[in-house]
Amino acid sequence: MTLLVTITGWEVEPWLDRFRRLLPDKRIVTPDDAFARDDVTYVATWKHPRGALKDLPRLRAVFSLGAGVDHVFADPDLPKIPIVRVIDPDLTMRMSEWVVLHVLMHHRQQRMYDWQQAEKIWDEDREQPAAKDVRVGMMGLGELGADAARKLAAIGFDVAGWARSRHRLEGIRCFSGIGELDAFLARTDILVCMLPLTDDTRGLLNAALFAKLPKDGRLGGPFLLNAGRGGLQVEADIVASLDSGDLKAATLDVFETEPLPQESPLWSHPRVTVTPHNSAISNPDAIAASIARQVRAFERGEALSNVVNPARQY
Amino acid sequence: MTLLVTITGWEVEPWLDRFRRLLPDKRIVTPDDAFARDDVTYVATWKHPRGALKDLPRLRAVFSLGAGVDHVFADPDLPKIPIVRVIDPDLTMRMSEWVVLHVLMHHRQQRMYDWQQAEKIWDEDREQPAAKDVRVGMMGLGELGADAARKLAAIGFDVAGWARSRHRLEGIRCFSGIGELDAFLARTDILVCMLPLTDDTRGLLNAALFAKLPKDGRLGGPFLLNAGRGGLQVEADIVASLDSGDLKAATLDVFETEPLPQESPLWSHPRVTVTPHNSAISNPDAIAASIARQVRAFERGEALSNVVNPARQY
Repeated sequence: MTLLVTITGWEVEPWLDRFRRLLPDKRIVTPDDAFARDDVTYVATWKHPRGALKDLPRLRAVFSLGAGVDHVFADPDLPKIPIVRVIDPDLTMRMSEWVVLHVLMHHRQQRMYDWQQAEKIWDEDREQPAAKDVRVGMMGLGELGADAARKLAAIGFDVAGWARSRHRLEGIRCFSGIGELDAFLARTDILVCMLPLTDDTRGLLNAALFAKLPKDGRLGGPFLLNAGRGGLQVEADIVASLDSGDLKAATLDVFETEPLPQESPLWSHPRVTVTPHNSAISNPDAIAASIARQVRAFERGEALSNVVNPARQY
Repeated sequence: MTLLVTITGWEVEPWLDRFRRLLPDKRIVTPDDAFARDDVTYVATWKHPRGALKDLPRLRAVFSLGAGVDHVFADPDLPKIPIVRVIDPDLTMRMSEWVVLHVLMHHRQQRMYDWQQAEKIWDEDREQPAAKDVRVGMMGLGELGADAARKLAAIGFDVAGWARSRHRLEGIRCFSGIGELDAFLARTDILVCMLPLTDDTRGLLNAALFAKLPKDGRLGGPFLLNAGRGGLQVEADIVASLDSGDLKAATLDVFETEPLPQESPLWSHPRVTVTPHNSAISNPDAIAASIARQVRAFERGEALSNVVNPARQY
């Protein structure tokens, strides 16, 4: 039995090493190796080339190696095989670090204090609301969004969440569906997007949505954070909304095109923070171990966990 | 009965307004008003002038208006009267916001990413340890230090604490006394100081202490945060230790002289973040209400809460 590891954009060796150690009874191959296609029972993928999973007649499961499965569904020739998401506590913790950091950067006006320091200005009298008076809105309430929402609530923020389906999180008001989106936006000072990229969510973060965020919040205007996928956002609209005042500032970890092109105005916009899609880097140790556990359980006859709903694409 | 409100460096009116509303049966005066000294039963102070509390024969309690009471003990003519600290949930929450923000700034290497953004460099492959592999050391485990330590632990950091006396915090290893200080420092990658300023702690943050922090931590060197008092730190030593490599970076909210003088090298040091002593601004609403509650309880015959131990000075 063979596990085919197909990766674009990351180093492959760290993954091969771990799978060989964790699944010594399997043959671990890459697309460049010679292997029998009808011996492949599992695929582990990060952005595999379109069509690479065709003609694998004994394929039983496809494992995604990073958060999000839009890279899998981007393949029009995807076989009808269970697709397994990563749910890894390490990935979740790292993502929440990034979200808490960048929400607090806006909340505590750190960019303004950076500017004061550069100008050697001592002004401690800036208006600073308490976290309880600042409304964070979390779009996406899966493992990652729910964890970040809870940690922000523990720091004291007034947190609400929005997702396509109804969620329940203790102490956090959860809105759901397109019908409740406007009410959610109307009470959101800092919008954090952690949605999956699907046909329904592509381009959702656009000028019309930003215009629905309140301009009279205690921080003096709405803030946008996107740690989901670049395809969720319309970057021309982000720049236009920053310039019109519909957005006060933005922190973006993901972009329509990655790496972010040199000519993008986001790099040098004074109210944009760019991080290079590293809010939560996949840790091969934890993720390979989780996949190996799933493979062994599956072969004992247990059901796969964290299987994606293909109709929802997440 | 008279409450004397004596404040240096802050606006007085917001405090007078609140005390007049909350304690309508008391006369509320400032040192500039005409008042009978033998009618003063309470003082509310932020950095009162030395000697200002002398000759108040009926004084029964002194209330500090901000975190820390070193400003009270700085008065050599202090009468032997109970001194009451502020313990205010709003102040605690704000301080923890600042601590979590600035610990995460170092942990997630945000200054390096700021530099990458300025240079339009996309490099997502920077080594980034998980919070569990980064050791935060909290000096000072009072209300403020304990709350910040718990919030950092909830985010995932490996947190330990140190204080003069033994403390117990769930999930956080607590060191105590000078005898355990070196062991605490030897396991600390990010040192956060929230100690009170006393005769024992003045100048504690010096080159000899920084040299005891490990240089082989997962973040590549020790970090210092001081949100306590400027008198705890030796600023010439901070600069020397940054330059020698004994410190990798520092974030300071407090300074030997405030406002920080224009000629201080801290303003423009590339690895120092300066905030203008605003980590936790006293909120007059919450603090005046807390003092009014204490006054009313005291007059019903109850004991004062949060009275400072004059021997310890905190």
